[in-house]
Order: sequence, then structure tokens, then C-alpha cells
Amino acid sequence: MKLIRYGQPGKEKTGVIIDDIKYDTSAFGEDYNEAFFENDGLARLQQYVDEHNAALTVIADAERLGSPVARPSKIVCIGLNYRDHAEETNAPIPSEPVIFFKSTTALVGPNDDITIPKNSVKTDWEVELAIVIGKKASYVEEAEALDYVAGYCLHNDVSEREFQLERNGTWDKGKGCDTFAPVGPFLATKEEIADVHNLRLWLTVNGETMQNGSTSNFIFNVPYLIHYVSQFMTLLPGDIISTGTPAGVGLGFKPPVYLKPGDVVELGIDGLGTSKQTLIAYAKN
Amino acid sequence: MKLIRYGQPGKEKTGVIIDDIKYDTSAFGEDYNEAFFENDGLARLQQYVDEHNAALTVIADAERLGSPVARPSKIVCIGLNYRDHAEETNAPIPSEPVIFFKSTTALVGPNDDITIPKNSVKTDWEVELAIVIGKKASYVEEAEALDYVAGYCLHNDVSEREFQLERNGTWDKGKGCDTFAPVGPFLATKEEIADVHNLRLWLTVNGETMQNGSTSNFIFNVPYLIHYVSQFMTLLPGDIISTGTPAGVGLGFKPPVYLKPGDVVELGIDGLGTSKQTLIAYAKN
Repeated sequence: MKLIRYGQPGKEKTGVIIDDIKYDTSAFGEDYNEAFFENDGLARLQQYVDEHNAALTVIADAERLGSPVARPSKIVCIGLNYRDHAEETNAPIPSEPVIFFKSTTALVGPNDDITIPKNSVKTDWEVELAIVIGKKASYVEEAEALDYVAGYCLHNDVSEREFQLERNGTWDKGKGCDTFAPVGPFLATKEEIADVHNLRLWLTVNGETMQNGSTSNFIFNVPYLIHYVSQFMTLLPGDIISTGTPAGVGLGFKPPVYLKPGDVVELGIDGLGTSKQTLIAYAKN
Repeated sequence: MKLIRYGQPGKEKTGVIIDDIKYDTSAFGEDYNEAFFENDGLARLQQYVDEHNAALTVIADAERLGSPVARPSKIVCIGLNYRDHAEETNAPIPSEPVIFFKSTTALVGPNDDITIPKNSVKTDWEVELAIVIGKKASYVEEAEALDYVAGYCLHNDVSEREFQLERNGTWDKGKGCDTFAPVGPFLATKEEIADVHNLRLWLTVNGETMQNGSTSNFIFNVPYLIHYVSQFMTLLPGDIISTGTPAGVGLGFKPPVYLKPGDVVELGIDGLGTSKQTLIAYAKN
């Protein structure tokens, strides 16, 4: 099943994609949030869709897409999970996963504009596979970790490198600015993805390929990451773990290349669709 | 006004404290959460309490207290915000605030047990003043920052030093374990606190004083912190900023001293009450 949320920011309605056509599921009556995943929402939604298939309304292509999951309790990110990306940023290959957080207020739709923050000079891109957690996870065994997965999404882990690396703190400072987490277009439930460890992921800026990697190059794989993160905190249904980015970020160029207003970023992962964001300057509302 | 939440974990009811007596406000019909603060809940609650004063029911002293605010979108923490604490941990005095996150799943009541995580050997204490945000805050001017404060709480920023400092990642790994954020006993609205920059804060372990500081020794004060954090992320109503801890944490002793099962931690801040937690070993449910 492929789940979407669409409509005005903060007022998204729910839907599903069947055979490349988007259908409204508002009448199901639940947002795709913590309570939904916690209360076996995926199975109930599948049943709802099966029973109402013929009566579902098509969503107009012009409708804005939101994040396919509602604002979660947390967005946990894994740093340096591809060997080539660690090398390009002159970081050592991690002996165990690097964990940081994105403020959940950064969450936006897959094709929303990315706002370059006030005083930013180093806004950068990172195509990533995001795991969506399906049930409460604490001290999960690696062998059972996939039982805790609801599905997967495409995520651009937008990063401000000066805020992240040069402003006297943890990476969190450069990861959670508003619009820094475009997620979607859809959540693919895990049975949609035959092998999550063999997906091509790519990103272009103004049409030029910057990242072109494969999840086969993960240093730490999906079950290990869920096991690992769950040693340090409890993951809640709907929470996101973003699994790191392959080589090709702006920081890795010599000299580095950063995003400016008007730039267009496109990204995609096999089986998880594509997204496209335009960069805009910060403007006081 | 002093706000409390009480009852079973996850099913807390609301209340207020008037003249040291706890009264139930369940009939007000709203939890103390993002929507409450966003929709002028403090003023409406005050009016409700004024109108129903005589009819309010007293809460039994035996009732468990929960966190006085419901699970927020984020708990942002400031590191090394007291000169003496930076020195005791051999960290340089920060030139600008250090920011990290606590997983919001760490939030518990002020007198709940603290669980020493599985495989933890360095669980430590940190008495802190926590700011509760009253309205959405983005790029806030320092001069206007206090307009964004709902009130203040006592917080024990429990920390696992090995997870935080020796496990190859940002501090987030050692800050968000379950039960690592006892908050309360109550939220004091800002007019209750005459001078937030002149409050004594203290912490004892098994009756022995470990921390005894004053918010007059902040490196960065409350308005500056709100201004500063809001440059990097949008703060939502109900969000918590914890303002750092003074000297006297376990990590600062030579040799360091850490918490073990059975230890009792008590802490307090002038005008924000006291809390008391007993340490317990992790046990699989």
C-alpha cells in the first residue's frame, strides 16, 4: 500500500495510491499519525480500501502533497552511514551509528519550497531513505527489528553546514530549520519494497546529478539501526529514522557548493517515488 | 498560577495549586498541551479557576504527579550554560549556546522512578530550570523573548555520560532514555517568578548536597536563549527549553560518581518546588 497526505499545510487529508492513481481516504476518518500506526491502522486502512475500492474519489493532480505521515514524536537521523559520504566529508568511518535529531517542525511536503534560513550561507542537500516505525520499539532485537517497520519514504535531510559544524554545538543546530525535512511523496508499506538494501537513490540540483548511490552501501543496515536506536530511546509509532546519505553533498565538493534561491533540487529512490523542491530566500511573514 | 497534571502515566488529569492545595481542573476539559497554550489556554484556565474556585475538588496527596505539561513537540536543551559546570567537565566556556535534544519519550513525572538504562554504567544527574514556551516562536528578538514564555518548571536532565560522550555521536544518545526527563512538580506561570535570573537551584543524592547554584550564574540568560534557539528552529507552544546545569554533576567528581539502583535524588529551584526520584535497574517488562 502507498499512503499519501494532501491539501493545505497543517490541514492535510489522507489518501492512497493504487496503480499510480491517487484516491482520497478522508472518510476512513483518521490521520496517519501515532494513534493510527499504534492501533493497527495499516491493516484497517487496507481493509477499508478493499471494501470501498469502487467508491473512492480520485484526487486532482494539482493538489499539494504533504508529508505522508503526520508530525511524529521524533525524527532521528543517522550520520555518515555510507562509506563514500564519510570520506567526502573527511569524517572517520563510524564504529557505531552516529545519531542526531531533526526538529519535527522541519517536516514539509515532498514538493514544498525549501526556505534558506536567515543568515544561512551553507544550505545543503542529502537524499535519504527514511524508515517509518509501526509500533513502539524499545530494546529491539536485530532479528525482530523489521516487525517494527511500517514502511519507507523518500527524505531530503536538508542541512545548514555552518549551523551544523561551525556553531559550537551538536549537529542538531543545522538540521531542524523550517522546511528542512521534505518527506514523501508517499509512504510505501514494507511489503512494497522487495529489498530495502538494494535501492538506488539519487539527487540532482538544477538537473545536474549530484548524488547517485545505493542502499547496498549502507555501513549499518535497517534492522541494525532500529535495534541500535532503540537502545537509547523508545521509538513511537509514526516516528522516523532517516538512514544517512551517500556521497555527493555540497559540502563534499572542492570548493563546497551550496544552495541559493531559485535552485531546484530533485531526488528519488527506487520504489519510493521522486520529489522536487525549489529554494527560496527567508522572508519575514 | 501553578499548573499540575496528576494520575496514571499517560492518563493524567489536570489541576492547579492554590495556596499550597492541589485542585482538580478536569472539567475545564483540556490537557496542558500544544493546543492549550496556542489557544490562550492560560488566560482561559485562570478565568475558569476564578469562576469555579469554590467548587473545585481537592486532589488527594497520595495521587501521583505527572509532568505538568503534556508531551511537547520537543525538549531542547542548552549545554554548559554555567561557567562552573563547563570547568568541571573540562569543556571550554561556550562562545555561543550549545544545543541538543532530549527525546520527548524521556518525559516523566517529578517523583517517578528513574530507570538506569540497560548497559548503562554512567547515569548522572543535572538540576535545571526549564522554560515552557507559550506561543509559536521563530526568529524572536531578544527584547520580546519573554512574551513567548508560558512559565517555568523544575527539570532533572538525567544523562548517561558514556552514551553521551563515548559512543561516537552527538550528545543526544545519552539524554533521551526513558525516564530521563522528570519535570515538575508544577508549571509556574511567568508572573509567579519575580526574577528568573536569581533563583537558587540545588540537588542532593541520598541526602548529600551535590549541586547548589544560582541562575544568576547563567552564561546565556532566558531571553537570549529563546532568541538564539529560535534562529535554528521554530518553537511550538508547550515546547521546553532546559537551560543547563550548574557545577556538581557526577561526571565532575574525581573520580566520577554515578547513580546506582536504590539511590535517591532530590532537587529543587526557588519558587518551582522540589522533586524526588529513586533509581531503579532496567528490567524487561
